[in-house]
Order: sequence, then C-alpha cells, then structure tokens
Amino acid sequence: MNAYLQLEERFRTIATLEDAAGMLHWDAATMMPPGSAEDRHDQLAVLTTIRHDMLSSSETGELLAAALDTDALNDWQQANLREMERRYKHATAVETSLVTALTKASNICETRWRRARADNDFGVLKPLLADVLSLSRDAAQSKAERLGCTPYEALMDQFTPGLHTDMVDALFDRLGRELPDLLSEILEHQASQPEAVAPAGPFPLDQQRALGARLMTVVGFDFETGRLDESLHPFSGGTPDDLRITTRYEADDFMTGLMGVLHETGHALYEKNLPSDWRRQPVGAARGMDIHESQSLLIEMQACRSLEFLSFASPLMEEVFERVGPEWAPDNLYRVYTKVRPGLIRVDADEVTYPLHVILRYRLEKALLADDLPLDDLPSAWNDGMAELLNQTPPDDRDGCLQDIHWFDGAFGYFPSYTFGAVIAAQLFGAATTADPVILPEIQAGNFKPLFAWLGKQIHGKGSLLETPDLIRAATGEELNADVFLGHLRKRYLAQS
Amino acid sequence: MNAYLQLEERFRTIATLEDAAGMLHWDAATMMPPGSAEDRHDQLAVLTTIRHDMLSSSETGELLAAALDTDALNDWQQANLREMERRYKHATAVETSLVTALTKASNICETRWRRARADNDFGVLKPLLADVLSLSRDAAQSKAERLGCTPYEALMDQFTPGLHTDMVDALFDRLGRELPDLLSEILEHQASQPEAVAPAGPFPLDQQRALGARLMTVVGFDFETGRLDESLHPFSGGTPDDLRITTRYEADDFMTGLMGVLHETGHALYEKNLPSDWRRQPVGAARGMDIHESQSLLIEMQACRSLEFLSFASPLMEEVFERVGPEWAPDNLYRVYTKVRPGLIRVDADEVTYPLHVILRYRLEKALLADDLPLDDLPSAWNDGMAELLNQTPPDDRDGCLQDIHWFDGAFGYFPSYTFGAVIAAQLFGAATTADPVILPEIQAGNFKPLFAWLGKQIHGKGSLLETPDLIRAATGEELNADVFLGHLRKRYLAQS
Repeated sequence: MNAYLQLEERFRTIATLEDAAGMLHWDAATMMPPGSAEDRHDQLAVLTTIRHDMLSSSETGELLAAALDTDALNDWQQANLREMERRYKHATAVETSLVTALTKASNICETRWRRARADNDFGVLKPLLADVLSLSRDAAQSKAERLGCTPYEALMDQFTPGLHTDMVDALFDRLGRELPDLLSEILEHQASQPEAVAPAGPFPLDQQRALGARLMTVVGFDFETGRLDESLHPFSGGTPDDLRITTRYEADDFMTGLMGVLHETGHALYEKNLPSDWRRQPVGAARGMDIHESQSLLIEMQACRSLEFLSFASPLMEEVFERVGPEWAPDNLYRVYTKVRPGLIRVDADEVTYPLHVILRYRLEKALLADDLPLDDLPSAWNDGMAELLNQTPPDDRDGCLQDIHWFDGAFGYFPSYTFGAVIAAQLFGAATTADPVILPEIQAGNFKPLFAWLGKQIHGKGSLLETPDLIRAATGEELNADVFLGHLRKRYLAQS
Repeated sequence: MNAYLQLEERFRTIATLEDAAGMLHWDAATMMPPGSAEDRHDQLAVLTTIRHDMLSSSETGELLAAALDTDALNDWQQANLREMERRYKHATAVETSLVTALTKASNICETRWRRARADNDFGVLKPLLADVLSLSRDAAQSKAERLGCTPYEALMDQFTPGLHTDMVDALFDRLGRELPDLLSEILEHQASQPEAVAPAGPFPLDQQRALGARLMTVVGFDFETGRLDESLHPFSGGTPDDLRITTRYEADDFMTGLMGVLHETGHALYEKNLPSDWRRQPVGAARGMDIHESQSLLIEMQACRSLEFLSFASPLMEEVFERVGPEWAPDNLYRVYTKVRPGLIRVDADEVTYPLHVILRYRLEKALLADDLPLDDLPSAWNDGMAELLNQTPPDDRDGCLQDIHWFDGAFGYFPSYTFGAVIAAQLFGAATTADPVILPEIQAGNFKPLFAWLGKQIHGKGSLLETPDLIRAATGEELNADVFLGHLRKRYLAQS
C-alpha cells in the first residue's frame, strides 16, 4: 500500500475515534447523570491521547513526506494531503509539555470563571487568565513558526483555516465604520413602525418540541439518522450519520428556542451533506468554523427569519399551539423576529448588532496577545469599546468582559468565525437566490430542496477541497466581502413597512 | 517504572476504552436513531481493534513475563497479574484469521436467525450454524491448549472463569435428577392453594417508571450516578460510576417489568460496589457472569420476591397506581410472584423450571461441540429433552431450538452461568441471612443496607481477587453446591399456605 493510502487508513481511524468521542460529548451534555463527569472525563482523555499519538507520531510524518514526494494524486487526494499536513503541523508544532500546561491552565481558569462570573469578580481571575494568555502566546508563536504565518493567524488557523489577519482587519474596519450609523438609522426606522407583539405564553414544552421537530423536517432533517434533545447550551453534535441537535425550551418564549433549533439544523445538515466519498478523511470534513457558522446562519437568519418562511410557519404555529390572533400573523412574527435591540450580551444579540460585539472582542484579544493591553485595563477597555461601538454601558464586569467563556477557556482566535459566518451566509444566500429564483418562493411553500440543491453543489459537497476564500469565490463569483451582508441589513431593516 | 506497574497502566487504558465502548453500546440500545447502526458499528470496531492490539501485543507478553519473574507483589497484585495473564492468553491463543472468520460467521448467522426464528425455519440456518460450530470448535481447541483445560472449559472460561466441567456435570446431574419430581410436587401443592390474582391493568408507563425508580432507590441505586431507560432487551450497562439500567414496560402487566428492573439493579449494584482501589484493573472487575447473575438473582429472586419485600412494596404500589383491593395484599402479590408454570420459553421461566431449560442447552451444546450430535438431529433432540425434563412438547422450532440467540451468535459455553448464578444466589442469601438475622426484617422495612454490607464485604469488595469456588467458600464456609438452592425451593414453594 502506498504512503498516501496508508495515511488515509490512519486518518480514517483517527476520525472514527473522533466520532466516538463526539457521541460521548453529546451524552455528557444530554443524558449523563450529574455525578458521572469524572468518569466521562477519563474516557475522553484516553480517546484524545490515542488520537494525538496516532496523529503526531513520527510514522505520520514519514508517510506525509513520502506521499508528497512520490505519489501521483488527483485534486481531492492532494487537498486531503494538504489538510492532513495542516493537522500534523498543528499537532506537532507545540511541545507536549506546553500543550499540557495550557490545557491545565485553561481548565483551571474556565472552572474558576463559572463562579467568578456569577460573583462579578474579575480580580480573582486575573492571575489565572494571565497564565492562560502567556501560555497561549507561546503556543501561538510555535505554531506561527511552523505554519509560516503570524501568531494570531496561527490561532485562527485552528478554527478557520484560510482566514488571514488582513482579511479580518479589512472586513472588521468596514463593519466597525458603517454598522454604528446603520444601527441608528434602523432604530429610528423601527420606532416609526407598528410595534412587534410577541405571542404570550405559556407554551407547553411538548408542543414546542413538536413544532421544532416538524420545522426541522421541513428544512430537511431526517429523524431516521438524528435526534432532537435538550441541553443547557444548545449545540449540534454527533456524526453525519447520527446527528444530535440540542436546544433549550423556555415556557414563556417559544420563538427564541425555535430559531435555536433551526440554527442547529443548519449546522447539522452541513455535516450530513458533506461528501460521503470522503467520509472520515480530512478533505471530507467541514471547511472551518466560519463556513459552519455560515450554514447555521444561512438557515436561521437568511432563510427562516424571512417573511416567506414565517408565512409558511405561521399556520403551523397556530395549529400546534392551538391559538389564533393578530400576533400570529406573518407580518407580526416577522417584526418580532427582526426586532433590533442593542444590548450588553453577545449571545442575545440580533444580526445587526452581533458583529459589533465580535469586533470589540477581536480588537481586545489581538491587543492582549500582543501584550499591548495589560489585563488590569481589560474591563475599562471593554466598557470603552461598548460605548464606542454599541452606545452601551455595562453596569458590571459580569455583563462586560466576563460574559464569554472563550478567553477563560484559552480559545483565542475563535471570535472572528461568528461574523465571517454571518457575512458568508449573506453572500451565499444572495448568490443562491439569484442563481435559482425559485428558492425563496419554494421556502414559502415549505420546500427547502432547491436551496439545499444549490448549497450541496456549491458548499456542502466540497468539504475541505478548497480553502475558504476560494470556496466563496467559486460559489458566488466574488471575493469574500461585506457588501451583500450590509445590503441585506439595509433591505431587511430599512425597507420594512 | 517496573513491569507490573507498566501493565497496570496498559490495562487501565484498555478498561477505559471498554468503558467508552460500553456507553456507546448503551446509546445504541436506547437512544440511537434507527438509521445510524452502521456508523456505530464502525466506532465500536475501531475501539475493539485498538483494545485487542494493546492487549495482544508482544510488549504485553514481555511485561507479563518480566512481572512474573521479578516483581515482589502483594495478594491483590498477584491476582491482578493472574487475571491479566488470563486475558492475554484468551487474546493470543487463537490466530487472528480464525477470530475474524468466527466473528464474521457469527454475525451472518445471528442476523439470519432473527428472520429464521420468525419464519420457524431451522433448515435455512443449518449451514450457517454449521460454520459457527466448526469455527467455534477450532477456537475452543486452540484456547484449551493454551489454558491447559478441555475445549468446553476453555469456552466457559471466557464467561465464568473458575468453573470446571466436573462441577457443572455434578451440579446439573443432581438438579436434572431432583427438579422434575420437585416440580410435580410443587404443581400439586400450588393447585391446592388460593388462586394468585394478578392486578388488572392498564398501568400508565410513567407510573410504572416512577415505581421502578422508587424501588431501585430503596434497594440502593443512586440516580446521581445512574439512569433508568427503556430498550427492547433489558440490560444493565454503563460503568460503575455511570450505571445505565434499561427495562421494557407492558401496559397490562407491571409485575414482570418491575422484577426486571430489580434484577438489573442487582447487576448494577455489583458493578458499583466493586473495589474502587482497583477500578479499571482486571482484579477490580466482576468475577464472572455466574457471580454477576448471582447478584441479580439474589436481589430479584431471593430478596424482592420474598413476602417480606412484597409486604414493604405493596402499599407503595397502591399509592403509585392509586388502586386498592385484595389483589394488592402482600400474600396475593407473593402468590403471583412465586407462581410456577412449566413452559416452552427459557426467558419466561420461573426459578423452579429455569435450571431445566439450562440443563437441556448444556447437554446439547456439549454434544454439538464434541460432534456427537448432528445438526440435523438438533430439533428432535431438543424436543426429546423438553419432554424428559419439563414434560413439554414444543409445537415448532420457533419455540424450540430456535428460541435463544446464543448458539447462533457463537456464544457456546455461556448457558451454565444462569443456573450457577441461581444456585450461588441461594447460597449467598442463605449465608447472609444466617450471619446477620436482621437482613430480612430490615428488607421488610425497606432497608437493604444490612444485606449490602454483607455482600460488599464478602463478594462485591473482592472483585476478581479469588477464583469463583474460593470466593463462595470464603463467603459461605461451604463448597459451591445445590443444597441451599433446593432447600430454598422446597421452603418457598412447598411450605406456601
């Protein structure tokens, strides 16, 4: 067997172990009894060690060198090899002792953060976050040398391969410049419109569940190879052949939970439609967290918050909840689902203000990593940024710089993926509906097949064949840029009547 | 690190992978969507291969040799080494090609069996079962040479280490001789007693679930580290720190399902109370399927079918189901739970007739393996045995030789564990209640602590320190034998009034 085929076998085993670990993660979040966390931790640690050892072994390095030198490979195989090498470099760039130290520091800091956030106590976290930051800097430096990029790019490359700092700077400069004024315009416009009236609860959980499952099926989710369950933090997990979506229900508000379900359905259907010929190979995996987020936001924000989809869903909602009234009219539901309200909390933000939360975090984490912002100054820098970008003043750190888990868990370089996801979602949905004008009318008829036909061909079926910028260019004919996203916001939020 | 400690580390990893696989099995039986079986199969196959490679590697063999030669070990460590060696021998005794062929033949035969049983078609299975049998014979021969025992003992050693053919022959000869007459006596006696009146359903499933969970807690199950769910075939799975019990509810009969729950609780609490200092080491594992079954049967048959326990449970049942009436009286419930009814199906059998079903299978599988019984003659040999032992005539093979999965799945040598479990359960319960006379009165008060204190000290806490016959002798002061079991049957079924 030649070197390339041996690599395929090795990465297939690694991916299958990842699949197994994914199921155990899902179980831990949904089914596992409260007292069994340590037991599960041990199982996942063993699976991680075995995977890491297989990936980083000298044999893998030798096979990669041999495959690059000798084998005649087609495009998919070459791309597979490129992605194998990327993973090998990430796994071997950092000394094991540093990886261990960073994992440990992140675990300690994240665990402490859960209480410190509730206690509004940034002070107690400072020395722990300083450790995480210092070790993250060292790891980023090692990866940067290995990958031939800047340290911040090396961190981003773990989550969103193909994104470079100049792209992020350009996109975020523009959004940071234009969005605050656009936001003022939108708020003024919405103030002149009829009030959005949220249907009043309570909404029994089994009815919410039934509605969610029904609309998931409409979008294309197949319960023959997937489930919908509940967890504290909603996520989409499992494997392409065994999709596990979770959500959280609130008795008084079905609308937020429902969009959460549809968001996770977008993630899940991307996984499901990845190229099955390359299942469990790096080239067959999702392209990155930016593209993943684009698929969830495309379904949630572009497709399912449209007046077209809400026109389809409105009678189903009335039927499931056995209610009628003007608040169930598509126009009103659309007003509720597109209400813009600047706030302190990123995860509660609407699509207009969300990028501003991300831009703040991007600026701050780059400064922290470059040692340009002392940790002592982080709370005030956060609050200054909130005032500048969102005209908001956090009353305390709990709803300020303590609100997100990412930094305390060592996930620097992750935040850009959210806004790149939103921007890419707008570009893709725009290209799709232009290429096939029946997509939106069919969504209004409860048929997502034309949309998924386009997505399957342009995005899902390509897995990791192309780097993100090339994938977007091939799908849309344009560079990745903010025009369509900003145009979408203007159209949706200023043309409203 | 010395050889012994390296072995501990290696076996800890293997056991942790087994734990992970156990959770994935549980998920497959309870939660997994119907279309995801192939995906799960791939995950479990990779975990099995990695475990097998670690266990059977030449390094393991070298470490075992070095540890046996050089290290000064205490009793637990010596026993651990003995169990490590047993596993190593089983893993390496049979050529990989034969293991693969046997696994494949068993999978094919078992899959085909599911339909053939429904179709009452033994003929179609004959060539497939012939393959399984022939490959099983070869594997048994290889293991026998390696372990220094007879081929049938080598098969039993996979499930019930420490049992030898002469012990099984002696016990089964005696039960085969005495039980048929005892059965006649019991049937005559019960005919003279008041009729047992089963409470009439329907019993809502959530009430059945609530009753099961409540009585599990009474027995000692802790839902902080365990769950109760539903599956087609009830089982006890998971890990000692994350116990997963399943059951099946029938709307018209809560009594069968409830005893199933208590049976699995016995299995689960054995796992939970294994020596935590030796968690994930071979010496810390359950002693064998005979001892495992003894723990489930001790809880189900000895403790929970007693008049004492039913006196405690009766008012709880009335409360949960919101019913009253003479059929809920402890005396009547006891009569229902100790009703003897010879029948065709092993899994439905009461404790008096169950051993006769097992003895038949033991005789036949020994003859099949020794090539003394042609497969063509199996159905008639089965029916002859049923007539002799149970005075029953199967109307067809579906309820005859096709009823159990074991042979078609290649699990020859497993059946004796059921009846050894029943016999050991009686011996242990007899010894426990003699050593501590408060055990039964406390069970009547809903307190299982005295029983579990004795079991913990004599059985659970010893893991696999002793071989089964030594374990029984140490706990009861007697050899493993059928006296107590037969005495229990006479007392329970002939003294009934």
